[in-house]
Amino acid sequence: MSHPVSPLAPQTLPELPPVAGVRLATAQAGIRYRGRTDVLLAVFAPGTQAAGVFTRSKCPSAAVDWCRGQLPGGEARALVVNSGNANAFTGLKGREAVELTARIAAGAAGCAPGQVFIASTGVIGEPLDATKFEGVLADCAASAGSGPETWAEAARAIMTTDTFPKLATRRVRLGDAEVTLNGIAKGAGMIAPDMATMLSFVVTDAALPAAVLQALLDRGVRQSFNCVTIDGDTSTSDTLMLFATGAAGNDAVASAEDPRLRDFAAALDDLLAELAQLVARDGEGARKFVTVRVEGATDDASAHRIAMSIANSPLVKTAVAGEDANWGRVVMAVGKAGEPADRDRLAIWFGDVRVAVAGARDPDYDEAEASAAMRRQDIVIRVGLGLGEGTARVWTCDLTKAYVEINGDYRS
Amino acid sequence: MSHPVSPLAPQTLPELPPVAGVRLATAQAGIRYRGRTDVLLAVFAPGTQAAGVFTRSKCPSAAVDWCRGQLPGGEARALVVNSGNANAFTGLKGREAVELTARIAAGAAGCAPGQVFIASTGVIGEPLDATKFEGVLADCAASAGSGPETWAEAARAIMTTDTFPKLATRRVRLGDAEVTLNGIAKGAGMIAPDMATMLSFVVTDAALPAAVLQALLDRGVRQSFNCVTIDGDTSTSDTLMLFATGAAGNDAVASAEDPRLRDFAAALDDLLAELAQLVARDGEGARKFVTVRVEGATDDASAHRIAMSIANSPLVKTAVAGEDANWGRVVMAVGKAGEPADRDRLAIWFGDVRVAVAGARDPDYDEAEASAAMRRQDIVIRVGLGLGEGTARVWTCDLTKAYVEINGDYRS
Repeated sequence: MSHPVSPLAPQTLPELPPVAGVRLATAQAGIRYRGRTDVLLAVFAPGTQAAGVFTRSKCPSAAVDWCRGQLPGGEARALVVNSGNANAFTGLKGREAVELTARIAAGAAGCAPGQVFIASTGVIGEPLDATKFEGVLADCAASAGSGPETWAEAARAIMTTDTFPKLATRRVRLGDAEVTLNGIAKGAGMIAPDMATMLSFVVTDAALPAAVLQALLDRGVRQSFNCVTIDGDTSTSDTLMLFATGAAGNDAVASAEDPRLRDFAAALDDLLAELAQLVARDGEGARKFVTVRVEGATDDASAHRIAMSIANSPLVKTAVAGEDANWGRVVMAVGKAGEPADRDRLAIWFGDVRVAVAGARDPDYDEAEASAAMRRQDIVIRVGLGLGEGTARVWTCDLTKAYVEINGDYRS
Repeated sequence: MSHPVSPLAPQTLPELPPVAGVRLATAQAGIRYRGRTDVLLAVFAPGTQAAGVFTRSKCPSAAVDWCRGQLPGGEARALVVNSGNANAFTGLKGREAVELTARIAAGAAGCAPGQVFIASTGVIGEPLDATKFEGVLADCAASAGSGPETWAEAARAIMTTDTFPKLATRRVRLGDAEVTLNGIAKGAGMIAPDMATMLSFVVTDAALPAAVLQALLDRGVRQSFNCVTIDGDTSTSDTLMLFATGAAGNDAVASAEDPRLRDFAAALDDLLAELAQLVARDGEGARKFVTVRVEGATDDASAHRIAMSIANSPLVKTAVAGEDANWGRVVMAVGKAGEPADRDRLAIWFGDVRVAVAGARDPDYDEAEASAAMRRQDIVIRVGLGLGEGTARVWTCDLTKAYVEINGDYRS
């Protein structure tokens, strides 16, 4: 579980400011790991509104089922996140573990169990012993704080095979107030489209009703977490939640279309994109960060599917790992996407180097230049289809021997 | 290009009998490789009928386009297969190369260019210099034979990253005659559903019209090559062809539904399945041969998609490589397939060991037994959905560091 920090990690961690109405604490509940924190408790001020987007897996975790069930209530007073055990495919015991966790957290935070949101990440199929939260969450609630170090600790406590904590923050005007957005995420493996992170939580002191938050989140996830893939494997536990405490006291906003929300929505989108990129930068075994851009598709949805086909192709990803400007594999991945494509109109670039045009190798293409583009740490693969106006951009990483190594002995 | 022979290779190669009406020869055309054969010429008796199934890639190779174009003619007099260059994404030059190859082969075999079928496998996007076939194919036609060694040589000449040649044979009664079916295949990487081998050719001395052959092939591919996946990457060049010389002089059969075809069809299906399994046994870097069985799905098509989701999951495949009975990842792969599934009815077996039942870990499950099942070379992953009568069976291999190594420096 102690892999070297990804070479794609940011040089420094951002310092997150406090968000009024939110207090955080972490602890060692001993769920699975030893000698590290594995549980995060966030306590929210009364009236905090919540929104969420969850995995589309047909086999979701017990925690995902629980959150979906509580979300219509709209109000959140606590969030419990544990790492080490996903509490997925744990049957009746899994549901009981979630209910017990909610009761323990409710007691600690002084709220109803239905106001507690829960997320779990880690091994699938092992029963989660929620009695380990007894006492631990009460201590967390008592000691919870809001300093920058608590955010870093929160991001650390939810890591599994992540090699660095993922944090981002934005400050933006909303009507007559300045509001803060803080977000954390964890990722690493089992990361794929249709809710692509395993877990991410964003909190703001903005005053916004749950329905508005949900609309903003649904929109924001499209160009962020739904555009990142590590291995095409969709987790049972993917959870993205947005909490708004209302402490900033901004003007009331009743609709996601309200023009006063423009800057806030842009900041949220930007923060989600930053967190999603951090997830790709910490893909298991990642040595290269890859941006795939597709343009000229028949429409945006088609472009997205082609971009995902490229980003998920093991042959493209191993070629990137080998620093090989193997555009033939990009052609293959375009061809297998099942989307409209005309082989003889295709153009392909690695970085700024156009290697193929009009369905064949670019006559002016210089192998040395293409190779130089592949030696960079951040790689851009660009495909022009020449059919229409559809565009897409997705992020991924390379497929290395380290990915196989990490996943060949994760459980044991 | 010289990787150790797959540990999953058969102990011995089968000896293929002659097929009346077919002569074979191989040569070194120097397309890409040095010191090995890279071209196969098969010469067929007049009247030989042909059928084919090709890649569904939207970016097919020039050779695939050519074969599709000639197939309605129904008659085949020659087959040219080269390794080292796929002649895919080669634009106008690619079409010219195919036309030149057909003219050279037609001259050598004494037939019309439209009676020549062509397949190419290897690197994508590099122009294929078909002038290298000048003289070479004429020599092949002159020396072509039908002994068992010619079949082994044919299977060797079409290999790329394959580590062993793939051959199979059947002998079966068709009406009043005994007929022979010989087949060869090559695979290794870029192997996925929807025509899963790169190249496979089956020849028989049966007398069957092209339309009947096509119907039998369309049916046979479903439970064979369309049930094998190495990496989910669909080749631009996938080609499966069936040639029938008619030399066996069996009764005329006009319909694929003719009851006299029952044994022949069964033998063909069986031969295709054997070749498809050999492809999975030689997946790039493969150390384990994996059979995924799904039962209890709402229908067979749904079962197939779930089985493919499991067989293509990098996390399942790396777990198999690590001999880890990680059934949680099987749950994940079921969940992401997008098919009807009820988490709480799922059951999962590794070999004969049931590890999960009714949506949770099997209470009687013994980790040591499950681990023992994973240490075998041939692994069976079985999933019961408990919803209906749909079943599927697909073959794959594990995902190892060797796969990454092979594909990280294939081109360079």
